[in-house]
Amino acid sequence: MKRDGFLDALSMRLGERGLLREPDDMTRYVADWAGDRLGMPLAVARPASTEEVVDTVRLCREHGVAMVPQGGHSGLVAGALPAAEGNELVISLERMNRIRAIDPINFTMTVDAGCILENVKQAAAEHECEFPLALGAQGSCQIGGNIATNAGGLNVLRYGMMRQLVLGLEVVLPDGRLWNGMTELHKDNRGYPLKQLFLGSEGTLGIVTGAVLKLSPRATQARTALLGLPSLEAVIELYGLARRDCCDLLSAFELIPRRCIELAMEATSSLSDPLEEPYPWYVLMEVTASGPLDLGAMLEHLLEQGMARELVLDGALASSEGQSAHLWQFRESMLEGQRRRGEHLRTDISIPISAIPVFVDAASHMVMEASPECEIIAYGHVGDGNLHFNILPPPTMPEADKRHHLHELETHLFEVVDGHDGSISAEHGIGRTKQSAYLERLSPVERELAEGIKALFDPEGLMNPGRILPPRD
Amino acid sequence: MKRDGFLDALSMRLGERGLLREPDDMTRYVADWAGDRLGMPLAVARPASTEEVVDTVRLCREHGVAMVPQGGHSGLVAGALPAAEGNELVISLERMNRIRAIDPINFTMTVDAGCILENVKQAAAEHECEFPLALGAQGSCQIGGNIATNAGGLNVLRYGMMRQLVLGLEVVLPDGRLWNGMTELHKDNRGYPLKQLFLGSEGTLGIVTGAVLKLSPRATQARTALLGLPSLEAVIELYGLARRDCCDLLSAFELIPRRCIELAMEATSSLSDPLEEPYPWYVLMEVTASGPLDLGAMLEHLLEQGMARELVLDGALASSEGQSAHLWQFRESMLEGQRRRGEHLRTDISIPISAIPVFVDAASHMVMEASPECEIIAYGHVGDGNLHFNILPPPTMPEADKRHHLHELETHLFEVVDGHDGSISAEHGIGRTKQSAYLERLSPVERELAEGIKALFDPEGLMNPGRILPPRD
Repeated sequence: MKRDGFLDALSMRLGERGLLREPDDMTRYVADWAGDRLGMPLAVARPASTEEVVDTVRLCREHGVAMVPQGGHSGLVAGALPAAEGNELVISLERMNRIRAIDPINFTMTVDAGCILENVKQAAAEHECEFPLALGAQGSCQIGGNIATNAGGLNVLRYGMMRQLVLGLEVVLPDGRLWNGMTELHKDNRGYPLKQLFLGSEGTLGIVTGAVLKLSPRATQARTALLGLPSLEAVIELYGLARRDCCDLLSAFELIPRRCIELAMEATSSLSDPLEEPYPWYVLMEVTASGPLDLGAMLEHLLEQGMARELVLDGALASSEGQSAHLWQFRESMLEGQRRRGEHLRTDISIPISAIPVFVDAASHMVMEASPECEIIAYGHVGDGNLHFNILPPPTMPEADKRHHLHELETHLFEVVDGHDGSISAEHGIGRTKQSAYLERLSPVERELAEGIKALFDPEGLMNPGRILPPRD
Repeated sequence: MKRDGFLDALSMRLGERGLLREPDDMTRYVADWAGDRLGMPLAVARPASTEEVVDTVRLCREHGVAMVPQGGHSGLVAGALPAAEGNELVISLERMNRIRAIDPINFTMTVDAGCILENVKQAAAEHECEFPLALGAQGSCQIGGNIATNAGGLNVLRYGMMRQLVLGLEVVLPDGRLWNGMTELHKDNRGYPLKQLFLGSEGTLGIVTGAVLKLSPRATQARTALLGLPSLEAVIELYGLARRDCCDLLSAFELIPRRCIELAMEATSSLSDPLEEPYPWYVLMEVTASGPLDLGAMLEHLLEQGMARELVLDGALASSEGQSAHLWQFRESMLEGQRRRGEHLRTDISIPISAIPVFVDAASHMVMEASPECEIIAYGHVGDGNLHFNILPPPTMPEADKRHHLHELETHLFEVVDGHDGSISAEHGIGRTKQSAYLERLSPVERELAEGIKALFDPEGLMNPGRILPPRD
């Protein structure tokens, strides 16, 4: 057995629960939420403290072992999955799940990086605060992964991405030194913003072990509406109205095409058509507030204007938590419905909000020309210009052809994205699966600076190598 | 005359208006708003386009000339003032003041870096949008300076610092190459966040020539209140109430001590005591909204609660723009009143919000022990934990002794800041004046990474050398 000396030393340091070496024990660390997998790790380290992470990294460095920091398996770009060669040590922070402190007056919470997002949200709520990051995967994803990927989700429109929600970080650097940047300060302009480099670095510059999160006041009321609209142009116009009319209380404005409503009803039999007639586009929007404002009147005022301008044709309004949860179920079930359709192209692109209608038009034309039997499902976060423009292959297509066919469509789609000054990765990052498309679009000066940053933090190239940038020779 | 060849070549490229070489023409580029000055520049370059900036930087590099990018002279840490040795070229972007584009649907504006903040705000308002950065110096400071210093100001509580308001950047790197990061995307997770490094880099990594700014809907109504409170503890408790009760519509929550109300009345004779009785502490707060909410009722609800709990003892409410401007005049005039008192210690520190009362207590004790005749003026942005804890020397102290005495008090004050896990520079940055205090607090690993970043972007050390970090040997 190779690497036995290293693994024995690591096992001695981390104890029996701290190191998994048997293939059967490691299966749950090799695949992500969507079922993508790469290979088998050398082993899985499960350190229980920052000090154990430090010692794990030091041992890896001593023995030249590559490390893959891993969160909750919902990154979806193979950034935290071990490579096929079986030579990488997965470092899972799942045992580091302590909420270290909450300061509801300072609106901050200090946590271990392995905390599950849902638990963080609940702990905040117990102190009349809110941690506003909201993702489909919030029941399983970890704060460290949210930081490493600069996670987005449903409420970015109002609260920003993870970058805006992190005040302090504690990071074990690739050489095993600890960087203590655990400040609880809301404002701090001392020197270069090291913290910012770790947000979105996908575990390639170090392992985040702790964080100070920024909280908001807890929302005490919400109003949710599912609206039927005639066109994408109407969606965009309603968004502009809603931003103004709902002040800064608009926390979600989700675009849902008719096909997704159908997929949701297929996946969840208890769901029936939400409005009397079908509409080509739906918007699921929500306003929330922490104080005693009349949100209902505010939303009704918006909808009156929207209907007068024929932007909104019909709508269902929720005024209780149960009704709101029912409307959100369409958003959740449509993902399950999509997953049941088997292999398909998932994308995560962004464009300027004003370009959404022309982009969807151009991209749809491209697909219809290239592969008329495919089905397009374009949903997303309107206020972020973030679309998941996904493509389902024809059910009749042989399984063996699907992957290649979808890859070709992706290439063409990304060209349409380029034509609208968009991004091929709005929220999921680069990892391994987006790497070649990313590199093709990187200017020489950007590549040089990116490689310089990687080399500065990780001169030996052992920290999540080959993610974002290719491994160095 | 030294450097004649270089200056002649530069003059040829930039034209007569583009290069100032006479000492008389250069005086306005050597001092900042507070009157601090360092020395005389070699010359002042005033490029009129990004291409001219590129060529200026290339010529500097060719001739080994150090560059000092300069905005509107309100940084206050000598970060953009030329050094005493007369060997640095000031590069002012004041002629690059074009608003390149506004997209009110995407909520973005694209500008030259030399645009004055006030003009940007006005241009946004003309499109029913708002650029929310608000500073005392907004009539003179430039967007490029706001970016380089990651500017803060009055509305950070609600809208964040400049970092949160910038989507894209165009930067001329120290080697003369242009980095085009001018994206209008609200969400983009491709690779390392290069943009973030320039925000707060104080011109040491490159010269920002253009930016895409993120806009908000324009506020169509505002309510302002000036409140009298019995104690700092009451201020903090009211802040917690206000964050919840005013939802996310609270845009300012300024702490003002009694002494500042008096300074304001001294500076502006038309101001009279705003409340019937004097109070030890005042809060100037503002709520704004872009839609049809009842802000007045919201604010009254908060104040009723505040009075019932004896947090608020009295208050003046503004319900018109004129009345609101009158209340804000106290905030502005107190700065002028302070300035008239001559040399004094200005600080810009931050601490956790919950620590404000104990910090002010500890810092005041320190001053009263060390120098009982000094006067303390502690005002600031409560929601950011950002205090300007300033110290006026006794009027009887000989001028020659003041500087040394204030420097000693600053050293002791910073120790109190350290004891409360605070920052010695919340919003103004490091520049030259905060450098030694900054370096004393920098851990070896932080210093190594900061020096590595500087060396990566500026291996020859010609871009604003000696700011943030000392010049390399």
